[in-house]
Amino acid sequence: MLKTRLTERLGLRHPIICAPMAWAAGGRLAAAVSAAGGLGLIGGGYGDADWIAQEFRAAGNQPVGCGFITWSLAKQPALLDLALSNKPKAIILSFGNPEPFAKRIKDAGVTLICQVQTRRDAAHAMACGADVIVAQGAEAGGHGQSRGTLSIVPEVADLIAKDYPDTILCAAGGIGDGRTVAAALMLGAEGVMVGSRLWASKEANVSQRMHDTALSATGDETIRSQTMDLARKLEWPKQYSARVLINEFICRWHGREAELIAVADEEAAKYRAGWIEGDPEKSNTFVGEVVGLIRSIEPAAEIIERLMREAEDLLLSKPREIVSQA
Amino acid sequence: MLKTRLTERLGLRHPIICAPMAWAAGGRLAAAVSAAGGLGLIGGGYGDADWIAQEFRAAGNQPVGCGFITWSLAKQPALLDLALSNKPKAIILSFGNPEPFAKRIKDAGVTLICQVQTRRDAAHAMACGADVIVAQGAEAGGHGQSRGTLSIVPEVADLIAKDYPDTILCAAGGIGDGRTVAAALMLGAEGVMVGSRLWASKEANVSQRMHDTALSATGDETIRSQTMDLARKLEWPKQYSARVLINEFICRWHGREAELIAVADEEAAKYRAGWIEGDPEKSNTFVGEVVGLIRSIEPAAEIIERLMREAEDLLLSKPREIVSQA
Repeated sequence: MLKTRLTERLGLRHPIICAPMAWAAGGRLAAAVSAAGGLGLIGGGYGDADWIAQEFRAAGNQPVGCGFITWSLAKQPALLDLALSNKPKAIILSFGNPEPFAKRIKDAGVTLICQVQTRRDAAHAMACGADVIVAQGAEAGGHGQSRGTLSIVPEVADLIAKDYPDTILCAAGGIGDGRTVAAALMLGAEGVMVGSRLWASKEANVSQRMHDTALSATGDETIRSQTMDLARKLEWPKQYSARVLINEFICRWHGREAELIAVADEEAAKYRAGWIEGDPEKSNTFVGEVVGLIRSIEPAAEIIERLMREAEDLLLSKPREIVSQA
Repeated sequence: MLKTRLTERLGLRHPIICAPMAWAAGGRLAAAVSAAGGLGLIGGGYGDADWIAQEFRAAGNQPVGCGFITWSLAKQPALLDLALSNKPKAIILSFGNPEPFAKRIKDAGVTLICQVQTRRDAAHAMACGADVIVAQGAEAGGHGQSRGTLSIVPEVADLIAKDYPDTILCAAGGIGDGRTVAAALMLGAEGVMVGSRLWASKEANVSQRMHDTALSATGDETIRSQTMDLARKLEWPKQYSARVLINEFICRWHGREAELIAVADEEAAKYRAGWIEGDPEKSNTFVGEVVGLIRSIEPAAEIIERLMREAEDLLLSKPREIVSQA
């Protein structure tokens, strides 16, 4: 068993948090992750009150949290009350300024997790009172920024050691097997947030066709792009892009953003129709580079158990293999 | 001491290779790295026969290798003969197709190292006979591509295990302290290639002003760009960009590439003048995201000893801290 301050503080069996992937992470996946000993999070995403309420119900009695896209939550802040009324185990805020929401979350006695992509945003989130910082690298699927996991995690660890020693650090972006979990722990993380590898689980709300497409992809076949947000007319701040599989949609529009904006009304309808159908060519499959390590869709509990067992085995065996007293 | 197939096969004391940074890695740095127990490489870069010959002389009796930018070497292949005539310990080819050169290198009994940025290029380099593959992530300073170190290393490790079990894997991009070395080893690398951290050494050919600028930067303050290659009129294939510190030059030109191309003659002269003066605003400081972990310019031997000792300590202590038999 891997024991860190994350497992202690949050009462988890395993130091693993499932990313609050909008749509893909519903109550079923969140509950499965929490039941398996990690922390499951409902992906509140752009915010739909009915969906969030329904997914908290679907999670049943499992202690799960809820994640929001912070800049979007700022447009409908009442969604935070809805989430808090469900007594979440944690609230995670990603992509935007957590300051307007931090006090309400902490006053409710709920753990505040902030996902950040830069050292600067990590410092700000800690100043806002984050209990847990998730430092997310550009390898990650879905939205993010440009810094790599291997570099941002130790830099934020140093910042925590210097200024906020009680804050717990988790690594995200590229975590999908025991090797990457063990690496994250060596970098100074006390836990991992896993997206793509749990997106590729039986409990995720993902179309069969998207799952099938991901299983055959290598990590070379993903790209960070802003086209899907332009096509959906979502107002993402310009520093963010999303990693997806390269497909028909990306080949058509990536690099032609100005033209896409000009026809966004028409394209938005096509994109949304493709999304509803789960079409991996006409919309997007949101996965990270770690897709190249994923070869099967399994129950979340099996994925978590394997990642943790592999990481533990590696942590015990690797030093014996390579550290010589000579 | 860390012992891997890299140390065994190449007869090194430490599993560390200094990146063949064009200009920065001359014979003095290469010799210092080899004397400290790693593998030093002269940065042959775009290719200047006199400079390469001079730097091999500067390395004296230390066993050092030489690196080339492969697409540039293809334009003046005689440089490979020059390098081979110096009985290099290894030749490293980065950024282009190694196939036209692989046989000559191997026939000379010289270790062939290929640095790659994608799974696809790793497979091709192994088919060409690479003895060592360096999988380089986008965190790296200088030229590279977009995949992250944390994701490409295990994916290439799987490819090696399946098809080329004798090939040795090293990780590059973001390696700058013991944590990142330990993480790379957990990912399946048997050694690391270090650029920025050894660029920030007393033996590197780097201007004082560039060193000073780097010491005060965080990892947030780097960017991948193609502007410096456009300004220098270098014919880099379009998949490559270079990571540098964000500065006056970048703020002026990044995102205005078409305009830059239109005035490239004039800008090339200004850029080169800035480069010769070691001006960190009018040319570029080529460092990776790991710059955020670097706070002093030290002798290469001290840097190497510390990285190795920190990694070893971490490999021994971390499992004790976090693996519980409960």
